[in-house]
Amino acid sequence: MSLDWLSAPCAQPNAESADAARAHQLQLTKPPGSLGILEAAAIQLASLQGTLQPSADRVWISVFAADHGVAAEGVSAFPQVVTGEMVRNFATGGAAISVLARNLDAKLDVVNLGTVNDPGEIPGVRRVIIAPSTANFCHGPAMSEVQLDAALAAGADSVREAQKAGAQLFIGGEMGIANTTSAAALASALLEAPPSSLAGAGTGLNPAGIQHKVSVLERALALHASASTALEQLRCLGGFEIAALVGAYVAAAQAGMPVLVDGFISTTAALAAVTIQPQVHPWLLFSHRSKEHGHARLLTALQAEPLIDLGLRLGEASGAAIAVPLLRLACALHNGMATFEQAGVSNVD
Amino acid sequence: MSLDWLSAPCAQPNAESADAARAHQLQLTKPPGSLGILEAAAIQLASLQGTLQPSADRVWISVFAADHGVAAEGVSAFPQVVTGEMVRNFATGGAAISVLARNLDAKLDVVNLGTVNDPGEIPGVRRVIIAPSTANFCHGPAMSEVQLDAALAAGADSVREAQKAGAQLFIGGEMGIANTTSAAALASALLEAPPSSLAGAGTGLNPAGIQHKVSVLERALALHASASTALEQLRCLGGFEIAALVGAYVAAAQAGMPVLVDGFISTTAALAAVTIQPQVHPWLLFSHRSKEHGHARLLTALQAEPLIDLGLRLGEASGAAIAVPLLRLACALHNGMATFEQAGVSNVD
Repeated sequence: MSLDWLSAPCAQPNAESADAARAHQLQLTKPPGSLGILEAAAIQLASLQGTLQPSADRVWISVFAADHGVAAEGVSAFPQVVTGEMVRNFATGGAAISVLARNLDAKLDVVNLGTVNDPGEIPGVRRVIIAPSTANFCHGPAMSEVQLDAALAAGADSVREAQKAGAQLFIGGEMGIANTTSAAALASALLEAPPSSLAGAGTGLNPAGIQHKVSVLERALALHASASTALEQLRCLGGFEIAALVGAYVAAAQAGMPVLVDGFISTTAALAAVTIQPQVHPWLLFSHRSKEHGHARLLTALQAEPLIDLGLRLGEASGAAIAVPLLRLACALHNGMATFEQAGVSNVD
Repeated sequence: MSLDWLSAPCAQPNAESADAARAHQLQLTKPPGSLGILEAAAIQLASLQGTLQPSADRVWISVFAADHGVAAEGVSAFPQVVTGEMVRNFATGGAAISVLARNLDAKLDVVNLGTVNDPGEIPGVRRVIIAPSTANFCHGPAMSEVQLDAALAAGADSVREAQKAGAQLFIGGEMGIANTTSAAALASALLEAPPSSLAGAGTGLNPAGIQHKVSVLERALALHASASTALEQLRCLGGFEIAALVGAYVAAAQAGMPVLVDGFISTTAALAAVTIQPQVHPWLLFSHRSKEHGHARLLTALQAEPLIDLGLRLGEASGAAIAVPLLRLACALHNGMATFEQAGVSNVD
């Protein structure tokens, strides 16, 4: 199989729409710039959607679930069975992202890429089983080349579904016990940064647990030091759901679909996607600054200014979903406010 | 007239509801604390509403407009006619807060307390005209005692209307050319802080304009140095709309109505309200950290942790309105997520 599709060109943001949106903002009945980041978000969406009337009404959320071999190293506060249990919880509506998607009237696409505790066929869950879990990357590569290929393709498939459904914004999320360990390993490799700067509490490790996680990461990074490309680092240290997010982000940018990036793990995938195909970058909007140690560093590396900073650290795409109403209001203000001329309001002296 | 009502006791938050909400959060299918500030917001609303199912569905927004004598000192980037023009814009639906209220399905109550450029009777605007503007506080008190009384009462009246309408959350906003100068003066007096620490760009002053604003504030504070109570400082340095916000916040706390506080001017009013009647404090939720210089200092003084920080500096209650969807999602998650037991998900090891 070939991964050549990853380097195919991305769509081009529309510079004329951006200029027109910027000029329009200056005509609205408010001091220029007084809506802060929301003005920039509306202008970016106008540019990406090639329109003067940007919209985030039709939102598609894909949550990719998968298990991790590195869980055997005892790096998570929760047992591995939870991944499969949460797949069911996503589909039956009790998880945070289920509640959020319902409230946002967003499509929730749950994709099971392989869990050790297999929940089987569940209505509302797409089974794209690659393996029960990745291999423990302390002993060898997390994925084979065939597995990496399949995971990347699963992400791209979700973007194609989102396109077919007419989505205006793509959100990717993840679930997988031990996946902050996988993401921290990949981020360390991509940034050539020490694991201690990227390993955090995940679902709730104490300081000793974090120290153990760092030592696991140091072993893994030493083992895979020869992995020199982002794709090979993703194969050796990533997870199926992280690779799916990478594939989704690249495919979205190629398809001209704006992306709202979630937290630590999703941002690691975004960094990998941008490293593999730099043209992905303008298609990414960043939703939030997570409480997970290391996320701020990733955001800085991506020059990202996220919308919210609420101390979130849940994953599942939840932070991105929570930021959706802000994008919607940014669009509503951009599209619905009167200009100085329309309202008969005097402009600045 | 008597202002004794301001010191009447406030309602008591419900400690049992808070405890029950806190315990409920720990049962939901997520790592404890992983929804960050949203968990705290849901618990606070549960406590204030005395319920296990908090809600911010029914939102009431009162925007108080008034002109300021101190505008004569050239402290605003916009001409004074804009206050009256914006009153019309609020009512006809073109202003930011109009768009936001519509999108949130919130009630928008526009109250004209007196503008130099009087827009007259407008459908959707309540006229509670106190005077065309306050007096220039560089030469004497901004308000007479009768005017202060009327402005405070106007705010309390809006809360009564909100209660009658069954509102679950009260938001106050303001419009008035030069009112960041008035708010900075009042905040300086309340905090005994130098005006330079509280004077900002407002609608868009350049550094020289801000320096001039500081010198105006220094003169005013020297003139009114003998004003020693918060009420007297409010009378001497405030505005009709700022006093209305103070009255509204006190009345809301007395009525047991949660308040979502907007930006710099609203937070100054909140500080005055809490100084006058400390029992107001638990009834205040804080929506955002404004870009206006001085807001961060006010938030610190109130030990406030706002929900968002988007570089907003518009006023009109817009920042609070923009934060409403986050409160609604906080409630939806609190009320709608499955517990570990309900979902059959394993809890932490």
